[in-house]
Amino acid sequence: AFTVGIDSGSTTTKGILLDGDTIVRRFLCPTSFRPATSIIEAWETLREGLAEAPFLTLTGYGRQLVDFADKQVTEISCHGLGARLLLPQTRTVIDIGGQDSKVIELDEQGNLTDFLMNDKCAAGTGRFLDVISRTLGTQVEQLDAITEGVEPHPLTSMCTVFAESEVISLRSSGIAPEAILAGVINAMARRSAHFIARLSTQGPLLFTGGVSHCATFRRMLAGHLNSDVLTHDDAQYAGALGAALIGQRQRKR
Amino acid sequence: AFTVGIDSGSTTTKGILLDGDTIVRRFLCPTSFRPATSIIEAWETLREGLAEAPFLTLTGYGRQLVDFADKQVTEISCHGLGARLLLPQTRTVIDIGGQDSKVIELDEQGNLTDFLMNDKCAAGTGRFLDVISRTLGTQVEQLDAITEGVEPHPLTSMCTVFAESEVISLRSSGIAPEAILAGVINAMARRSAHFIARLSTQGPLLFTGGVSHCATFRRMLAGHLNSDVLTHDDAQYAGALGAALIGQRQRKR
Ligand code: SF4
Repeated sequence: AFTVGIDSGSTTTKGILLDGDTIVRRFLCPTSFRPATSIIEAWETLREGLAEAPFLTLTGYGRQLVDFADKQVTEISCHGLGARLLLPQTRTVIDIGGQDSKVIELDEQGNLTDFLMNDKCAAGTGRFLDVISRTLGTQVEQLDAITEGVEPHPLTSMCTVFAESEVISLRSSGIAPEAILAGVINAMARRSAHFIARLSTQGPLLFTGGVSHCATFRRMLAGHLNSDVLTHDDAQYAGALGAALIGQRQRKR
Repeated sequence: AFTVGIDSGSTTTKGILLDGDTIVRRFLCPTSFRPATSIIEAWETLREGLAEAPFLTLTGYGRQLVDFADKQVTEISCHGLGARLLLPQTRTVIDIGGQDSKVIELDEQGNLTDFLMNDKCAAGTGRFLDVISRTLGTQVEQLDAITEGVEPHPLTSMCTVFAESEVISLRSSGIAPEAILAGVINAMARRSAHFIARLSTQGPLLFTGGVSHCATFRRMLAGHLNSDVLTHDDAQYAGALGAALIGQRQRKR
């Protein structure tokens, strides 16, 4: 039977149509100024043409904004479940999204044993890369191409606001933008490694969320953790996938 | 004898010409892109026309950037000394400048007993008010006039970056800018009260640094601390004043 999971994040809305363990459809769009609009769009796109309305589970920041879901579940539970479907041996999940980051610790059976969440400070989230990229006239999507093989210039400030000023001042003292960008990614990767180490570094470690698409970031994070950092093409859907899986379990009972 | 104290802050450079315990001249300018330039400007302005070069003590972030000073002293020591000259009974100093904030605890004799410093997060500093004021098309100097008697609108985010987005979204949902600004000042005052309470709330408490000029902030801080918050017309010069005082003591020996 089909189930749908929608992850209403503060930056991106993600959705999955699942049949058993198989992903049938994916949905992804920037979260609208009115997040409920994006949830409705995801729902209509994913269920289109199906004879019967699939079981719908909502997760993420905006999960309580609409009233037509069958179930609402916290991100943490969904992320753990979704991560295990993508990579069954996963013991630690690091998720870095547009406006938050979290580390999730799972036992051998995949049960949630502990987690840490940051949604208070922009410096540990995708927003940091967004702000600095914009300051240097770049888009986040171009970061890998720009920073490949580039030696990172050291960055002193970790606060997004102070880093922005530092980057402007490095530019005007003639440092190349690609070295600054590599330095910015490296500084954030170092910070994320500390964040992860506060909880667990038990491998395998799966990196999910929007920032996981940045290969330079993954490489630098692996360096600071001194361990492998795995990812998956569907890593950004981990929360939605977990939500859809909860529906599958519910239907089986 | 004359002595000069210069406080080279990251946002503002302040200077004092002292004769014994008496302030003879004041100097204040925004710190230049090359902070040494502002120190030189302060020094030349303050010593102008004097027969003999006064003893010069430097303090603040940029104190090591020039080599012609007689002495260099940390901000914390200078601030405590300067605060006691402005208000002799001071037991706690809260200093909020453009890019840092500190609490300093003094014993009855005015000796430094403990301090806390934040220069890592823009949210607890004048930069927070700058960023949000600019977002709303206002200048920091106008905050008092705009927010007098206004009921603050609650603000959820404490991070400067997230608060900026929240303010934009409050504006587009029709909340009046003055209520938002009052809410922003209130949120920062609450945060500062927590910061102070981590160290000491022993009175009298003297508020120094650029942000001390904002009467709305002082009033809200006093409310959150549930105690008096004192200030002084020369509160922004506390560091420079302390530096000049160190010169007076040195000369007496
Ligand atoms: S102001 Fe800077 S350090 Fe503070 S919470 Fe925001 S990004 Fe983090």
